[in-house]
Amino acid sequence: MTTANGARLLLDTLVNNGVDVCFANPGTSEMHFVAALDEVPAMRGILALFEGVAAGAADGYGRVADTPAAVLLHLGPGQGNALANLHNARRARTPVISIVGEHAIDHVSLDAPLTSDIQGVAATFSTEVITSMSSAEVGRDAASTIDAAVGPPSGVATLVLPADVSWGDAQGAALGKCTSPTRSLPAASTIEAAVASLRAAERPILLVGGRAARDAALRLAGSVAASTGAELMVETFPAISTRGAGTPIVSRLSYLAEFAAMQLEGCDLLVTLDAQTPVSFFAYPGMDSKLVASGTNVVALAGPEHDATATLQAMVDLLGATDPAPRNEAAPVADPTGALNGASFAQAIAATLTEGTVVVDESNTGGIHLASATAGVPAHDWLSLTGGAIGYGLPAAVGAAIGRPDSKILCLESDGSAMYTISALWTMAREQLDVTTVILSNRSYAILNLELARVGATVEGSAAASMLDLSSPELDFVALARGMGVPGVRVETAEELTTALRASLATPGPSLIEAMLPPGLS
Amino acid sequence: MTTANGARLLLDTLVNNGVDVCFANPGTSEMHFVAALDEVPAMRGILALFEGVAAGAADGYGRVADTPAAVLLHLGPGQGNALANLHNARRARTPVISIVGEHAIDHVSLDAPLTSDIQGVAATFSTEVITSMSSAEVGRDAASTIDAAVGPPSGVATLVLPADVSWGDAQGAALGKCTSPTRSLPAASTIEAAVASLRAAERPILLVGGRAARDAALRLAGSVAASTGAELMVETFPAISTRGAGTPIVSRLSYLAEFAAMQLEGCDLLVTLDAQTPVSFFAYPGMDSKLVASGTNVVALAGPEHDATATLQAMVDLLGATDPAPRNEAAPVADPTGALNGASFAQAIAATLTEGTVVVDESNTGGIHLASATAGVPAHDWLSLTGGAIGYGLPAAVGAAIGRPDSKILCLESDGSAMYTISALWTMAREQLDVTTVILSNRSYAILNLELARVGATVEGSAAASMLDLSSPELDFVALARGMGVPGVRVETAEELTTALRASLATPGPSLIEAMLPPGLS
Repeated sequence: MTTANGARLLLDTLVNNGVDVCFANPGTSEMHFVAALDEVPAMRGILALFEGVAAGAADGYGRVADTPAAVLLHLGPGQGNALANLHNARRARTPVISIVGEHAIDHVSLDAPLTSDIQGVAATFSTEVITSMSSAEVGRDAASTIDAAVGPPSGVATLVLPADVSWGDAQGAALGKCTSPTRSLPAASTIEAAVASLRAAERPILLVGGRAARDAALRLAGSVAASTGAELMVETFPAISTRGAGTPIVSRLSYLAEFAAMQLEGCDLLVTLDAQTPVSFFAYPGMDSKLVASGTNVVALAGPEHDATATLQAMVDLLGATDPAPRNEAAPVADPTGALNGASFAQAIAATLTEGTVVVDESNTGGIHLASATAGVPAHDWLSLTGGAIGYGLPAAVGAAIGRPDSKILCLESDGSAMYTISALWTMAREQLDVTTVILSNRSYAILNLELARVGATVEGSAAASMLDLSSPELDFVALARGMGVPGVRVETAEELTTALRASLATPGPSLIEAMLPPGLS
Repeated sequence: MTTANGARLLLDTLVNNGVDVCFANPGTSEMHFVAALDEVPAMRGILALFEGVAAGAADGYGRVADTPAAVLLHLGPGQGNALANLHNARRARTPVISIVGEHAIDHVSLDAPLTSDIQGVAATFSTEVITSMSSAEVGRDAASTIDAAVGPPSGVATLVLPADVSWGDAQGAALGKCTSPTRSLPAASTIEAAVASLRAAERPILLVGGRAARDAALRLAGSVAASTGAELMVETFPAISTRGAGTPIVSRLSYLAEFAAMQLEGCDLLVTLDAQTPVSFFAYPGMDSKLVASGTNVVALAGPEHDATATLQAMVDLLGATDPAPRNEAAPVADPTGALNGASFAQAIAATLTEGTVVVDESNTGGIHLASATAGVPAHDWLSLTGGAIGYGLPAAVGAAIGRPDSKILCLESDGSAMYTISALWTMAREQLDVTTVILSNRSYAILNLELARVGATVEGSAAASMLDLSSPELDFVALARGMGVPGVRVETAEELTTALRASLATPGPSLIEAMLPPGLS
């Protein structure tokens, strides 16, 4: 029987404060944490075959559950493998508890092979980095880590856990207690001024993101916009947004800087709620990265530390806004026919999407028609690639399925991005998660063909072109899925895709559909 | 026609200084670098589907070629994906040029979604981090990066490359010129003192690693050991070592601290050449991490900055050592029969290994019998997991095949580790690399079952045990390989493995053999 050690105290503290899921890819330095899972059955440990999958799963979980999961990583290299998806979580402001196993305290200075600067790397994406130095105090440290993850503002908080802190005696030590997070409102005078400005402006835009892009906040934002004549706009890549029939009509800020600048042209007042002032995703030669014209008055009304819903409610109250937000009408979509391309792909998704589905979208160029096609389909949630680090989709789908066990998860995944974290399929099979994965197979990094022209680079020969090409050899995602225990099917027409989607959505458990789109951009 | 821009100047400088291979997974910020590949055909661009594969390939290439390859990474997340294998390269002291695309200089401060602290992360594993700030000077910066990678001591050097430095005008700018690296010797008096100590010691050990574990240096070390009565020992995980019939007899320092301490027991003098003073890989409760007894006199004669071969030659000269090093006798191994297990697996490898093969070993627990089984087989090179970050094998095999195009590469890869960077198989197929991959499938993280007991943790229930188990669902590596264009076969007996190995070694191009070992430790 293991006595109460630091690992046990840590797990008890996590569970006691509502953190009861841990996505893990452990190693030797985390063995006492793993052993303690047997003593704390309230903690659900979920194995991933790669830390990038575990981290992306924690991101997806946190977005749908609005409460943090833990992710257990093995030393500095494990944290490195998780970095890209923790970067996406940082951009999504997802609360995540990143627990990084470290060598025993006295072992670190010996520079053994796996030793590296864990804290230095963690500091680049964490709201706070805490290194626990004592078994008796790891409960307190864990609670502080949760506090730092929940915020506000929320984000990735890192707890570095030396092996001897895990295995050391913690008999009688106190559980850590979290504080209750409170989200404040901007000053009343600031809200009043923003409302007055919105009323006075000629062409105001209300830009929402983060926590303002979902649920009640989004509906209130619709009312504010309707009462003031403002256009309601959502940031380009919200962490999770409420969409579909009955939800407020929102225009989405374009990824393409040229279009985004057009959307913002003529705007004299831009009021933001939990959204950054728009800048170009990448820089382009001869183009300004700032998308807001110099004549636009930008009012950053509420940030990620604020209560967006209460702020918007205050605005509604000040406005006496009785206008309901204009809503998307229910608009059933017919089944598509004929060849598979970006348009028929989007139509097939729209025709089959069921109410309450969580869509995890990493469709990139292949998904360009999705937003318009699905505007009037049954209401659903939509997760997007917040930080631009590809390979988020499959892992986030794992986490979303754990966080929303009663929902169907629809993961729309580009072929190139899928290969970053393909082993997420194994965890879907292992946990029998209700995820339908659709691979958009166009056998290329199509987005780079697009960006190549936009940055003014010219490809004249095969050496450069081959760097964007995934056709040699062709990937067979049905074989890859089978190799990890997930049934799959390849579809070549719109009808086949629609049939496969309906079959998958009607069947519990994971499955994969490989949708063969035209090569390159479609 | 693209004019001479920073990217072109960079590529010209790399090629002009002997860096003519670039493993890449580019993104938008690297498009001008990619476009310039068409103008500089001497640079070979090799696409990987994941930066971790590209980085591991650069490590493998640098080990066998002893000259650096470049790896092209996409912003901070791409560098994060590469971190684990750059960590292994750091520990191997492999020269690697890590080129990390960054946003245009003015774009960085806008905090666009993909922005992160590239330099802060790079500093944790790089010998030097250079951020190029001018198109005209990127040649100079590239040369400085190569200098920092080549050393001595060699290692990973990082060049952060803003997009506008790539696309900006560099007409007429000068190519960068590298300095000629020189490796010095320890002071003559230091060498003389070490030789005198070796002669006087009761039970001396000569511990070689790094550049002292290969080729001429190893043979000279054997002579020194034979003339002084020292035991010749090699570090646990040398980057690349010379092995097999006709090579000096060397004992390898054990991974298991208990055994390593026994190997070092009674030693009154430990002389190291390009090897760290032995410490335990991990810490264990109640055990000292330092493996060298307090009575042992440790002389760190030569470090990674020194010329190990010249140092050993000086020792041979001082000793007038005419004794040739004791060599491993040629000892042909018979084909194994019967069930597949660790022993018959090793015997099958030994029975089929051909002269000049490069073995990339990430066999972990499954490969425990390999070292003894292959001691007398035809001479070969052996790469090992220097930094403990799993997922190095398949990528390093890619790089080794590019760096040694006339050699057969034999990649021995554990199932758990394989899944970290499985997409390396696709690059093997794309480039038709002559790699035979053997997957040691035991459906578990067997090393953790071993380590669990060693750290004193007890697994009493299924929650913890399941974290070490890969059997549900079973991975099908033949299907995975087929999905990436690599032919594969599953073998269940020693005879089948031997037959499959001979067939694969006789056929050019990549293939995979899934060797079904008993579950867990064998």
